[in-house]
Amino acid sequence: MVDFIYGHWAIMETLRAERRDIDQFLVSETIEEKGTAADILTVALQKGVKVQRVPRRIIDDLVPEGANHQGMLMRTSDYPYTTLEDIFALAKRRGERPFLLLLDLLKDPQNVGSLMRVADAVGIHGIVMQDRRGVGITPAVVNASSGAVEHLHIAQVTNLAQSMKAVKDQDVWLVGMDIGPNVPPIDKTDLNMSIGIVLGSEGEGMRRLVRDTCDMLLCLPMRGAIASLNVATVGATALYAAWQARGWQGWQHAERPSL
Amino acid sequence: MVDFIYGHWAIMETLRAERRDIDQFLVSETIEEKGTAADILTVALQKGVKVQRVPRRIIDDLVPEGANHQGMLMRTSDYPYTTLEDIFALAKRRGERPFLLLLDLLKDPQNVGSLMRVADAVGIHGIVMQDRRGVGITPAVVNASSGAVEHLHIAQVTNLAQSMKAVKDQDVWLVGMDIGPNVPPIDKTDLNMSIGIVLGSEGEGMRRLVRDTCDMLLCLPMRGAIASLNVATVGATALYAAWQARGWQGWQHAERPSL
Repeated sequence: MVDFIYGHWAIMETLRAERRDIDQFLVSETIEEKGTAADILTVALQKGVKVQRVPRRIIDDLVPEGANHQGMLMRTSDYPYTTLEDIFALAKRRGERPFLLLLDLLKDPQNVGSLMRVADAVGIHGIVMQDRRGVGITPAVVNASSGAVEHLHIAQVTNLAQSMKAVKDQDVWLVGMDIGPNVPPIDKTDLNMSIGIVLGSEGEGMRRLVRDTCDMLLCLPMRGAIASLNVATVGATALYAAWQARGWQGWQHAERPSL
Repeated sequence: MVDFIYGHWAIMETLRAERRDIDQFLVSETIEEKGTAADILTVALQKGVKVQRVPRRIIDDLVPEGANHQGMLMRTSDYPYTTLEDIFALAKRRGERPFLLLLDLLKDPQNVGSLMRVADAVGIHGIVMQDRRGVGITPAVVNASSGAVEHLHIAQVTNLAQSMKAVKDQDVWLVGMDIGPNVPPIDKTDLNMSIGIVLGSEGEGMRRLVRDTCDMLLCLPMRGAIASLNVATVGATALYAAWQARGWQGWQHAERPSL
């Protein structure tokens, strides 16, 4: 199988991460070589990836209807999924208590992509997601994540509830984000622990077995007229709360460039 | 001027909020009367809003290309913007210190809509946004906000930096969300105060004068490979941090129905 990766940051991070085989890199003849586009072509040159100039319509035909490819398309090997074992090995290598994100059948590539950007920002060791019915790491997700998934460690599993048990066997506490009158708010628990944040799908939330397998349920309080928040909003807030509880572990403040 | 509001929750909340004049409510002949669609028709009946059944293509022609209208369209009066004075009056009526959101030229209706959902959830008294060049409260924003804007108090101003000074005159501290090596993280300040969170536009951040008018700048730390987060993510996390600092003021935990 091959992937057709499109869009500036998806392509930039695919080049930088060097985790996929790149068969072809097609660039529209009409693209202006400035800004991010110029940076990408420089990185491609550095990495020895050959650029083919093609009419724009060829790229139009290779991406989903309406996708904003920005005149760039890359034919690559599949997304390089990892395993639970590798995720725990990464946490150990960093000398950090495990910090995971578990997704139960999310459907919207925008939501998954947005969550992946946050997962990258807070230093998540790995993401665990079910491999059927939910969205996988498609080119649309790579794009929506601004390429963040190319740097992340993502395991696709056949049975999320079963994998949750394997995660719990490693002394990781699973915290499901939920709503309802009996669910305590997110600041009621010290999140500074080996933790996996569990998020349910858009509309339906966690499946029952997934919810029941969590060690605890927490909620984001809401006081407004609308009854629910987007899962990407809930996930971003929960992931930042958990990382804050760790004292922003791994953040190298002074060394980050001004943007 | 008129608006063409589309989509289930946009229409439901427009009906519930009762803030707009409704000229017409068009419903596709092929729509199935169950679930949310049935609930909306019940609310329309209660509110005395007449439903007109029309062929689906008539609705298709009245919404932006590709918009997911779910077979429902409402012709209404313009979005009912409010004023800074009304926003402060609301805070006073609730007996709460002002809690505001200020948007500097955001461009993406999805981002603005997503932020509005969070603003509703955390009980923001009002949103202040510049009235030119940035996106206004269009039907696309109403839709992306799941109708939350119909319950919110939003002021459009001609000069955001000047309005920020008027806000500061009311002893409100303006906190700009920024990035860069010299910006302290969000947990370095007690956010339990009269506060306005200021967010810059996608890509460019706050304009210089807007940034300079803030009382302080804070950041969300980041430790990953990707250099920036989506403004809707940053805003959601900042708004929840500020509301948490207020001890979830106004949250009626036990009274919320289970969903």
